[in-house]
Amino acid sequence: MTGSTQEFGHGLEPGARGFASDNYSGVHAEVLAALQSANIGHESAYGDDQYTRRLQEVFRAHFGAQAAAYPVFNGTGANVVALQALTTRWASVVCSSSAHIHVDECGAPEKVAGLKLLPVQAPDGKLTPGLVDLEARGFTDVHRAQPQVVSITQTTELGTAYSVDELGALCDHCHRLGMRVHMDGSRVANAAAFLGVPLREFTTDVGVDALSFGGTKNGLMFGEVVVVLAPDAAPGLEYVRKSSMQLASKMRFISAQFEVLLGTDLWLRSASHANAMARRLAAGVRDAPGLQIARPVQANAVFAVLPPQVTDRLQQRFRFYTWDESTGEVRWMTTFDTTEEDVDAFAAAVREELAAAT
Amino acid sequence: MTGSTQEFGHGLEPGARGFASDNYSGVHAEVLAALQSANIGHESAYGDDQYTRRLQEVFRAHFGAQAAAYPVFNGTGANVVALQALTTRWASVVCSSSAHIHVDECGAPEKVAGLKLLPVQAPDGKLTPGLVDLEARGFTDVHRAQPQVVSITQTTELGTAYSVDELGALCDHCHRLGMRVHMDGSRVANAAAFLGVPLREFTTDVGVDALSFGGTKNGLMFGEVVVVLAPDAAPGLEYVRKSSMQLASKMRFISAQFEVLLGTDLWLRSASHANAMARRLAAGVRDAPGLQIARPVQANAVFAVLPPQVTDRLQQRFRFYTWDESTGEVRWMTTFDTTEEDVDAFAAAVREELAAAT
Amino acid sequence: MTGSTQEFGHGLEPGARGFASDNYSGVHAEVLAALQSANIGHESAYGDDQYTRRLQEVFRAHFGAQAAAYPVFNGTGANVVALQALTTRWASVVCSSSAHIHVDECGAPEKVAGLKLLPVQAPDGKLTPGLVDLEARGFTDVHRAQPQVVSITQTTELGTAYSVDELGALCDHCHRLGMRVHMDGSRVANAAAFLGVPLREFTTDVGVDALSFGGTKNGLMFGEVVVVLAPDAAPGLEYVRKSSMQLASKMRFISAQFEVLLGTDLWLRSASHANAMARRLAAGVRDAPGLQIARPVQANAVFAVLPPQVTDRLQQRFRFYTWDESTGEVRWMTTFDTTEEDVDAFAAAVREELAAAT
Amino acid sequence: MTGSTQEFGHGLEPGARGFASDNYSGVHAEVLAALQSANIGHESAYGDDQYTRRLQEVFRAHFGAQAAAYPVFNGTGANVVALQALTTRWASVVCSSSAHIHVDECGAPEKVAGLKLLPVQAPDGKLTPGLVDLEARGFTDVHRAQPQVVSITQTTELGTAYSVDELGALCDHCHRLGMRVHMDGSRVANAAAFLGVPLREFTTDVGVDALSFGGTKNGLMFGEVVVVLAPDAAPGLEYVRKSSMQLASKMRFISAQFEVLLGTDLWLRSASHANAMARRLAAGVRDAPGLQIARPVQANAVFAVLPPQVTDRLQQRFRFYTWDESTGEVRWMTTFDTTEEDVDAFAAAVREELAAAT
Repeated sequence: MTGSTQEFGHGLEPGARGFASDNYSGVHAEVLAALQSANIGHESAYGDDQYTRRLQEVFRAHFGAQAAAYPVFNGTGANVVALQALTTRWASVVCSSSAHIHVDECGAPEKVAGLKLLPVQAPDGKLTPGLVDLEARGFTDVHRAQPQVVSITQTTELGTAYSVDELGALCDHCHRLGMRVHMDGSRVANAAAFLGVPLREFTTDVGVDALSFGGTKNGLMFGEVVVVLAPDAAPGLEYVRKSSMQLASKMRFISAQFEVLLGTDLWLRSASHANAMARRLAAGVRDAPGLQIARPVQANAVFAVLPPQVTDRLQQRFRFYTWDESTGEVRWMTTFDTTEEDVDAFAAAVREELAAAT
Repeated sequence: MTGSTQEFGHGLEPGARGFASDNYSGVHAEVLAALQSANIGHESAYGDDQYTRRLQEVFRAHFGAQAAAYPVFNGTGANVVALQALTTRWASVVCSSSAHIHVDECGAPEKVAGLKLLPVQAPDGKLTPGLVDLEARGFTDVHRAQPQVVSITQTTELGTAYSVDELGALCDHCHRLGMRVHMDGSRVANAAAFLGVPLREFTTDVGVDALSFGGTKNGLMFGEVVVVLAPDAAPGLEYVRKSSMQLASKMRFISAQFEVLLGTDLWLRSASHANAMARRLAAGVRDAPGLQIARPVQANAVFAVLPPQVTDRLQQRFRFYTWDESTGEVRWMTTFDTTEEDVDAFAAAVREELAAAT
Repeated sequence: MTGSTQEFGHGLEPGARGFASDNYSGVHAEVLAALQSANIGHESAYGDDQYTRRLQEVFRAHFGAQAAAYPVFNGTGANVVALQALTTRWASVVCSSSAHIHVDECGAPEKVAGLKLLPVQAPDGKLTPGLVDLEARGFTDVHRAQPQVVSITQTTELGTAYSVDELGALCDHCHRLGMRVHMDGSRVANAAAFLGVPLREFTTDVGVDALSFGGTKNGLMFGEVVVVLAPDAAPGLEYVRKSSMQLASKMRFISAQFEVLLGTDLWLRSASHANAMARRLAAGVRDAPGLQIARPVQANAVFAVLPPQVTDRLQQRFRFYTWDESTGEVRWMTTFDTTEEDVDAFAAAVREELAAAT
Repeated sequence: MTGSTQEFGHGLEPGARGFASDNYSGVHAEVLAALQSANIGHESAYGDDQYTRRLQEVFRAHFGAQAAAYPVFNGTGANVVALQALTTRWASVVCSSSAHIHVDECGAPEKVAGLKLLPVQAPDGKLTPGLVDLEARGFTDVHRAQPQVVSITQTTELGTAYSVDELGALCDHCHRLGMRVHMDGSRVANAAAFLGVPLREFTTDVGVDALSFGGTKNGLMFGEVVVVLAPDAAPGLEYVRKSSMQLASKMRFISAQFEVLLGTDLWLRSASHANAMARRLAAGVRDAPGLQIARPVQANAVFAVLPPQVTDRLQQRFRFYTWDESTGEVRWMTTFDTTEEDVDAFAAAVREELAAAT
C-alpha cells in the first residue's frame, strides 16, 4: 500500500497537508523543546545517561514496577527486537494477515531473525482465540517451526481497537498454550484514548508480555521503546538490540522525547486529538451518497469505500493512500497536528467530488 | 501432521508395513546394487567424480541440454538451496498454504535463507494465476519483501497433479510478472506417471526455472537433485549448496543412485506402481458406507474422510496419519514396494472397521 | 572496550565532560537549528521529501554525479546495509582485526547479513595489499565464503588515516581481485581535515565503491548515510535498508541534518577542530615522564600508554576508556565541542597524576 | 586448499588412488553389509525407527548414560547444528584459525546460524587456555557478540591430537568462563587410536559439552552424529536439526552404519590402521634429503614441506593437496583402505622425485 518514493507526483507542492499517514506530520513543539533541553554537555552513550535512567521510572509509572524500557530507532526495529527476545531459534509467530510485521516490514522478521510468520485472516485486523488456534498447533512436531508468540497490533492496522476483555481472553488463551503475547503498539496511545483506561489496564494487567511502544506516529522525531512487561520474558534483549542495529549511540535524544511524551499527558492529549479528528471526518462524510465507511472508526484512521474516479480526483487535491484497489477502499489517517479546518476542508472536498461524479 | 518421534506406540512391532509415508519404505534393490557398484576405489570428493559427471548427461537427456544437476542430501535442502539461488536477499516466495516449504520444513526457508513465504489457500494444493496474484504484488514497494519466485509442488502435498496446460499458463503468468518458477518435485516421477508424458514436457518445456527432483520418496536411500532448467537462473548455486550444508563429500553415492534411477526406467516403473496401488486402494474403499474420498486420486496418495473412531481402530492395526483432525481427513500413501496384498488387506480392514462402527 | 551501562560509577556527576567518546557530545547548534527549520508541515515519509531530494545534490557536489545517498539511523546500520548491498549470499569480507564491524557491532554483519568476516592483524588499523592477500584467496573454492569486499575504516579505529596514495593502491589491488571496497567513514570528515583534500579525492577518485558517511560522531543527533559511489555496485540497496530496519519514516529529520552538515563547511570545521584538540592534547602530554603516545595522532584520538594506577586515578576525575588492559593503552577522544580549556585541564591532570605516581 | 571441481586434470584416470583426502575412499565392507541388512520392510521416518533407538544405547556405552545422539548428514551440518544448540542468538565462538568451521564451511556458521567466529592463530591447530583468552573476553559488553562456546577439533586439521590433560585443562578453563566446549570430532576415532584411551576419557570425562562424531571420513557412506554430552546443554536440538535441513527421512540408514561402526571395534580398527599408514609414510620419507615433516604425525595425516617442482611432479602421479603455497607445505591423508603397498609406492615416488630434483 505504501509504495515507493516519488509516488505523489500529482502536482502537490512539497509539504502539502493531507491524510496519508501519521508519519507525514512533524514533531510536536513540546518534544522539540525537550530535544533542545537535552542538548547540554556530555552524556555517556548507548543508554548510560540520566535521561534513559529516568525513562525507566516513567515507564514503570505507566506499566508497573517490573517493566523494563529499551529505546530503539523505529517501529520495525521495536517489533523485530521484541520478537527475537521472546523466542528461540526455531520459533514461529502467529499474527493477523494485515499485521505490519507481515505486510510492511520487507521481511525483516524473517531476514533479521529467521522467524517464520503464520498469518491468519482476521476481520478488522483483530485476532481471537479461535483464529489463533488455526495456526497455534503442532507443538512438539519437529517439522513445524514452533509457535511461541502471538503478535497483535493495538490499535490495529485497520483502525480498530481490541477491548480490554478481548485482550484478556486472548492473552489467557496464549499463555495456556505456552505462548507469549507481543503487542505492536505503534498506535497504543490511540488505543488508550479510545478505551478510556490507563495504559497498564490493557497491557500489563491483561498479560501482554512485551510491547512495542510507538512514538514516531504520535509526534516524536524518531524513536520507539520495547517495553518488557513480563519478568524474564526477554533475556538478552540488550544484545539483540545491538546486534539488530537498533542501539542508538546518543540515546539521550530518544529518551528525552519519551520523557516528555509519557511523563506528561502529551501522549494522551495528542492521541485523543487525532482520534477526535478521525471521528469528525467520519461524521462529516458518513452520509454522503456513494461513500461507505468500511471499518469501525475507533482510532485515528477512517477507512472508506469510494468510486475509483472519485478517489483519483481527490488524490489530485489531497494526499492519501488507496488501501485495496480491488475494492476501492481508501485510508485516511489523522494525526496530532490535524486541524478541524483540515478535516472540514477535506470532508467538503469528498462530498464535492462524490457529487460531481454522479 | 507428521509429528514427533515415538508417535506410533500402538503396539505395532518395529518394521510393520503401512500407509503412513513414502519415506517409510526402504531402498529399491536396483538402487542398492548401484551403491555397491559405486564402492570401488577412490573418487574425488564433493562432486568431482565420474558418477556425478555422468549424472549431468542423465539429467540432460531428460530435461534438455541446458539443464544442470546439483545433488543434495534431502528435500528440504533441495528446496531451500533452489530458492536461495533464484532470489536476492530481499525476496519473498508465493506458495500454497499446504506447501511442504510452508508447513513441513520447520521454518528452514526463513531461517537459513531469510526468505519470506507468502502462503495462499489453494484448493487441492494447486496454485493458479489468479491465486498467485493475491500475493504477487507490491513490486517496487520497498516495504514489501519482493515476490521473486512462485513455488509449486508436483504432485502436490494433497495427491493431485497439475496438468501440462495448467503449468504452462502458470509459468507464463509468473514470467510476465518477472518472477521465477520453482517446482518442488519430491514426487515429480509420480506426476510423469500420471500425466503420461516425458519429464521435460511439464518442466523445461513449460518454463519451470528450477526443480527439486525427488529421489528418497521413490526408492533411494537418500539424496535429491536441484535441477536448474533456465540458463543463468541460479548463479552461485554451488556456493549456496555448500554454505547451506548440503554438499555431500562422498557425492558419488548420491549420483550413482540417480544414475540408475533416471538412467533406466526405474523412476517411472516405481512411480507408476505406487500410483497404481493408490488407485487400487481408492477403488477398494470408495463405495464403503461412511467413507468419502476427499481429493482426486492422481498420484500415490489417497485422502479420505472417516469417522474418528474408525480411524482410531484402524491405526491400531496399520500406520497412517490423520491429516486434519477437525474434518477427520486421513492420508494413505503408497510407495514402490506397496504390494497388492498390502492394499487389499488394508482395504478389507477399512471396510471391516467401518462396518463395525455402524 | 566500550562496555556495559553504569560503568562510570566513579562519582562523576551526570553530564561531566571528558574524553571517552565522540558519541558523548551533544548536537551542534547549527544542526539543532536545521532540525527546527525542518519541522514545518507535512512531508511524505520514507524519503520522498524535499530534504532528502536536496540531499542527493549535496552529496553529489562532494562525491560526483554518480553518487547516491541513502540515509540510515546509525553507523552499524550503515556498514551492514552497505556490505549487504555489495555482496551475494555467499560472501566474506576482509577487514582489519580492529575494525568496528569486527569488534564493536555484536556480530551484526554475521547475524543480519550472514556475512563471514575475515579479520587481519593490521598495524595501526590500516590494511595494505599484502595484508589483504592473507585472506583474499580461495576464489572459486566452494568451501570458502567468497571474498567479495574489503572493508576499511577512514580514519581508523586507532586514530590513524590512510593517505590518498595508500587508498589508491589498495582500491586498485582489490578491483584487480574482483573485489569491492567499502569504507567505514564514521570519522571520514576527520580524515579530510587531516589530509587537507576534498572528500572525493580519497573516496570516489581512488575507487572506493561504497562509503558509510558518519554524522553522529561529528555533531549530529542521529543519522548516517550510505553513499554508493560506483554505479551499479549496490543493486537493491533500498530493499536491504528497509529489511535491515534502517529506513526512517520521518527521514526529513536525518536529511536536514546532513544538509547543513555537508551543505556548509560545518563538517570540516567541526572535524578540523576536533583534530586540533587531539593534537593539542598530544602536545600537552607527549614529554611527560612515564607516558608514551602509542599511535600517530592523525585525527581526533590520542592513544597513550600509562601506568595502570595513573589511569585509575585519572578515571576518577575524567571519563575515558582503557583500550587494552594488557598493555595499559588508553584512548582519549576529542570532538567538535572539546574546548582548549578541556584539553589543558586534562593535560595538566595527566601530568599531575604521572608525577604523583613516581 | 580443497578447491573446486575438475582440479585434478593431470591425466589421472578416474578412481586413481592417492593421499588427497579421507573423503576419497569408499565405504567399508562391513558398513555396506549393515546398510543391506537395514533394508528390510518399513520403518518410521525421521528417527522413530529401531536402528536409531538402538543407536542411543551404542553411544551411551561409549559416552555415558547422559549422552544423547542425533544423526545428521554431514560434518558441516553436525558442527553448525551443535553450535546453534549450545548458543543464544547473540553468541560468538572461539576457534583456531585453522578450524574447519572457519576455513572450510563456506561461512555456514555465520550464514545459517548468525554466529560470529573469533579465530585465533594456534600452533599445530591446538587451542590453549591462554589462546582462548585472547578472544574470550568482553563478557557483558553489549557491543561484543558474546563468547559462549570454544570449538576445538580432535584430531586437528593439522594432524595433531590434544592430550587428555590438555583437554581437561581447556574444558575447565572454558567452564570457569561460563563457556561451553564443542569438539569437532570428524576424526575423533583417530584421536582415540592415537591416545590409546576410551572415547569418553577425552570427551565426557574431561567436560566436553557436545561432540560432532565423524563417520564419513572413517569408512561410512554418509552420516555424522551430534552427541550431546552435558545434560541440558543443547535444548531444542531436534528443532535446530530440522530447520537446519539436517534431519534425514530414512534415518535408519545413518543409524545402521553407526551401529556397526561403534557397536563393534570397526571404528577403532579403521582409525588405527589409517594412523599406522600415516606413521609408515612419515617413516618412509622422513630422512629424504630436501623434505621436512612439518607437524607431529599423530593421526592419519602427514604434513611435509617439499620443493614446489617436486610437488608438481608428484601430483602428476598421485592425488594430494598443497596445503600452503607460500611455504610449500603439502598434506598427505591416509584412510581405512590405504594399503602398505600404497604407502610404500608413494614413499618411493617421493624419494625418487626428490632425488631427480637435486
